[in-house]
Amino acid sequence: MTKALDSAALDQIFLAARTFNKFTAEPVSDNMLQQLYDLYKWGPTSLNTQPGRVVFVRSAEAKQKLMPALMPNNVEKTMAAPVVAIVAYDTAFFEHMPTQFPANPGARDMFANNAGLSADTATRNSALQGAYLIIAARALGLAAGPMSGFNPAVVNEAFFPDGCWKANFLINLGWGDPSGNRPRGPRLAFEDSVVMA
Amino acid sequence: MTKALDSAALDQIFLAARTFNKFTAEPVSDNMLQQLYDLYKWGPTSLNTQPGRVVFVRSAEAKQKLMPALMPNNVEKTMAAPVVAIVAYDTAFFEHMPTQFPANPGARDMFANNAGLSADTATRNSALQGAYLIIAARALGLAAGPMSGFNPAVVNEAFFPDGCWKANFLINLGWGDPSGNRPRGPRLAFEDSVVMA
Repeated sequence: MTKALDSAALDQIFLAARTFNKFTAEPVSDNMLQQLYDLYKWGPTSLNTQPGRVVFVRSAEAKQKLMPALMPNNVEKTMAAPVVAIVAYDTAFFEHMPTQFPANPGARDMFANNAGLSADTATRNSALQGAYLIIAARALGLAAGPMSGFNPAVVNEAFFPDGCWKANFLINLGWGDPSGNRPRGPRLAFEDSVVMA
Repeated sequence: MTKALDSAALDQIFLAARTFNKFTAEPVSDNMLQQLYDLYKWGPTSLNTQPGRVVFVRSAEAKQKLMPALMPNNVEKTMAAPVVAIVAYDTAFFEHMPTQFPANPGARDMFANNAGLSADTATRNSALQGAYLIIAARALGLAAGPMSGFNPAVVNEAFFPDGCWKANFLINLGWGDPSGNRPRGPRLAFEDSVVMA
């Protein structure tokens, strides 16, 4: 029987983990971002669709493209973050199904011929993949600061002008500096969030 | 500087983790489901909104209510799973904001007065919370089998007749029996999923 991770590991990924607003000056290497992908990519998606896409924004030019999309209170911390991950989805994700889900040869057409199913699958599963990215980053010792406070239309226009990819949410990434952490928010009681049936 | 988890921990939550279709006969206790909530609840959500709700389906009666919603190929494994988590969202999640995000007294009304923002926030963040639940289950040694193959309208009618909560996706949970695992699917190459900018 598989055992629980030890308490230090549970602390690192959930119990003591925090949303970071500040990071050290240490850069995040190409190699580390590759390791991050090679970890979060294994999180499950519906029929192995993997609609999530990520733009890792590090250059000054790309940061400048992103800036006008940010809500004012997110500008300073995001411009200072070593990496900003734009978690997006590929609206044509189903074109990869022949290689990614070969067991079902009809899978591509099932999505390609059903715009509602495709859109639901892309948004839901890219969100799952963004959550895997957050936990995978923490598991590698990185700190994450996810945000929804931005204008997705501005990001889409600046980064995805052909309309095929669409932004879902943003995650600042780097080596955490806890001096920027806010007081931790509470969580709902079990009874307010969960029903046993 | 925070270090990466050891390779056994990375294996357990991502690298060697699998979607399970079969579970041992060992039940999943109330205490374990409480531990699971007390782990995944710490995953971050936008403005600490925590819109995700979960129904842990274990009883024969509740399983019977769920059955008509399942796609035929998901019926047998789901009926046999010790627990089925219905990952849902509370459309009125913002009513908890005065206690969950007291720093911003306007947060409740910002969502209450903007149906589009509320719906996006509820669906996106309940998906994130479902992903945290999957990883938290693995971190505790449980096995997870997430599914989108069901009719949400039938689940909503059976479990949420007042319309306040809405189903997002399902996760079978139990102690894993790897004999039911399918061959592992591939993953997209870094270049097909990630852009460096």
